[in-house]
Amino acid sequence: MTSYLEREIYEQPLAIGRLLDLQAGNVAQIAKAIRAFAPTFVCIAARGTSDNAARYAQYLFGTHLRWMTALAAPSVHTLYGAQPDLSRALVIGISQSGQSQDVRQVVSDARAQGALTLSITNNPASPLAQLAQFHIPLEAGAENAVAATKTYTTELAAVAMLTAALVDDDEFSAAVQKLPQAVQHTLEMSDGLPNWVERYRYMERYAVIGRGYNYCTAYEISLKIKELCSLTGEEYSEADFRHGPIAVIQPGYPIVLVAPQGATFGVMSDLLHKLYDKRAECLVISNDESVKEYARHTMPIPSSLPESLSPIAAVIPGQLLAMYLADARGNSLDAPIGLTKVTNTV
Amino acid sequence: MTSYLEREIYEQPLAIGRLLDLQAGNVAQIAKAIRAFAPTFVCIAARGTSDNAARYAQYLFGTHLRWMTALAAPSVHTLYGAQPDLSRALVIGISQSGQSQDVRQVVSDARAQGALTLSITNNPASPLAQLAQFHIPLEAGAENAVAATKTYTTELAAVAMLTAALVDDDEFSAAVQKLPQAVQHTLEMSDGLPNWVERYRYMERYAVIGRGYNYCTAYEISLKIKELCSLTGEEYSEADFRHGPIAVIQPGYPIVLVAPQGATFGVMSDLLHKLYDKRAECLVISNDESVKEYARHTMPIPSSLPESLSPIAAVIPGQLLAMYLADARGNSLDAPIGLTKVTNTV
Repeated sequence: MTSYLEREIYEQPLAIGRLLDLQAGNVAQIAKAIRAFAPTFVCIAARGTSDNAARYAQYLFGTHLRWMTALAAPSVHTLYGAQPDLSRALVIGISQSGQSQDVRQVVSDARAQGALTLSITNNPASPLAQLAQFHIPLEAGAENAVAATKTYTTELAAVAMLTAALVDDDEFSAAVQKLPQAVQHTLEMSDGLPNWVERYRYMERYAVIGRGYNYCTAYEISLKIKELCSLTGEEYSEADFRHGPIAVIQPGYPIVLVAPQGATFGVMSDLLHKLYDKRAECLVISNDESVKEYARHTMPIPSSLPESLSPIAAVIPGQLLAMYLADARGNSLDAPIGLTKVTNTV
Repeated sequence: MTSYLEREIYEQPLAIGRLLDLQAGNVAQIAKAIRAFAPTFVCIAARGTSDNAARYAQYLFGTHLRWMTALAAPSVHTLYGAQPDLSRALVIGISQSGQSQDVRQVVSDARAQGALTLSITNNPASPLAQLAQFHIPLEAGAENAVAATKTYTTELAAVAMLTAALVDDDEFSAAVQKLPQAVQHTLEMSDGLPNWVERYRYMERYAVIGRGYNYCTAYEISLKIKELCSLTGEEYSEADFRHGPIAVIQPGYPIVLVAPQGATFGVMSDLLHKLYDKRAECLVISNDESVKEYARHTMPIPSSLPESLSPIAAVIPGQLLAMYLADARGNSLDAPIGLTKVTNTV
């Protein structure tokens, strides 16, 4: 199994380290401009994997910067030609390729209205990067696998860097600087994963559940499994899951739970116990020993990370799970059936 | 099959008519207060079915009122104890029962910050209704089935009423007044549905796809199928679907497409053709004759409705599909396995 996908997953510590090194000055400048502009709220336009990075920003900005963060509804701009008032907002477009037309439209409308605009892409020459007043290049190097991995974790890291530059919190800033080591450590801790993945070769559906900061992780892991394995599954916040979808859980149902230590651990742990009682098959991403008793398999992440940065590590075992499962199913790792790298939607 | 669920689905024209009649004065008062407050943006807190009503508001407010509308991340308030700045926002809590603790926390934090707060519930005596400065009671009568139907369509109708009261658009206001007839007409047009539902008795997964105004409809129909049939499925915007999940589609895959005439019809119709080529089994909710050639079954809705109000009719055949399918599968219609009417999450 030599694939771009595998190489790109293992390149993540390096890519995040490069972003931290090369973009520190640029991010400090952007933070200064944002402080001067003093946005009333934040709006993020993104699709697919980048939309999951936007979900992360929604929580991190809310807790650390008191910014209410809306995910844009691009159709409002593109299909209905309407102009929601973004004049006092910080508007961020996130896109690996920087191509998608709908994301560009939101950013371009916002800029014309006087909003402060920022793009985060892996291609400084892309239309989206050119369009916004400020740009953070992901420095991830070319991503050749169709399924995004290193551009996702660098997107999250860029959001964390920006937050660190805006908030006066030395502990958080220090933890951001240690992200490359934390991700490297997670990759090393995941070496047992290939030994048990085959058990799920014939699973036909699944759910992935997270909460708070790791709501995005649930979405992103589920998207990787869909893309790479051509499977159907669910992704939910722990709270939404209890509001209905929990009805589908039967004995043997495979469920990935993202349950790091922190403010969400209590509710996630309680859900794990409920699912255990329903005889679901729980695969738990956690740095808390207590989950072991209820998990069919545990996917460890380092305890050193604060919950607010845990999504950057917690997605890693999910990426590996999707990759090994795709391999066990005989799927192409770099060019999954029916997908292309750049999807242009209006 | 005599169930609360069936009766409540058929009560919808009456419930919406009652809401329009009894709440016109109250909604006009609320509109006046909102105009005076002049919110910078809107934030909506909701869970489950009510979150789908919030998705509708996101599009309707964006296109008709130029309000950027954010869906709250309640965990930011409840689990992380943070306070995103909502002082200049209109903050709306939507909940059938008016009980859910996390929705209440967002509204209560917002009110303390000086935001304008509004609740939409089916119980004027509920904690959420008491908490907000303004309240729109849904007037739907007691909802006894666990799966929400008439409280969902009245929630959408309340959002449409509020929009009509704030925007100077006689055509839109007239169309809102005709909603009870449009919903009644949709119920009548759906009488062929029971004849073909059995074909899907053994389907194991599905997807529901919408776009723009009917993004909410895709989510809500999928939620009804999950709740009532204990099935796993996907719900997507047409654009997000093309960014990855389309990979899971194989010949015979059942897909519900919500494709009314209007600005989104072009992209939905194009997707229908793509899915037809992949030999997916397309069930299409539409008022456009051209879909018939590509659909295994068509679920008609009236042509009289503008696209902006079509979600209130388009969900109806989806509710019926979920109900007849649950019946064919031998599931309880009023008390689906593993669910309770009021889910309290923090």
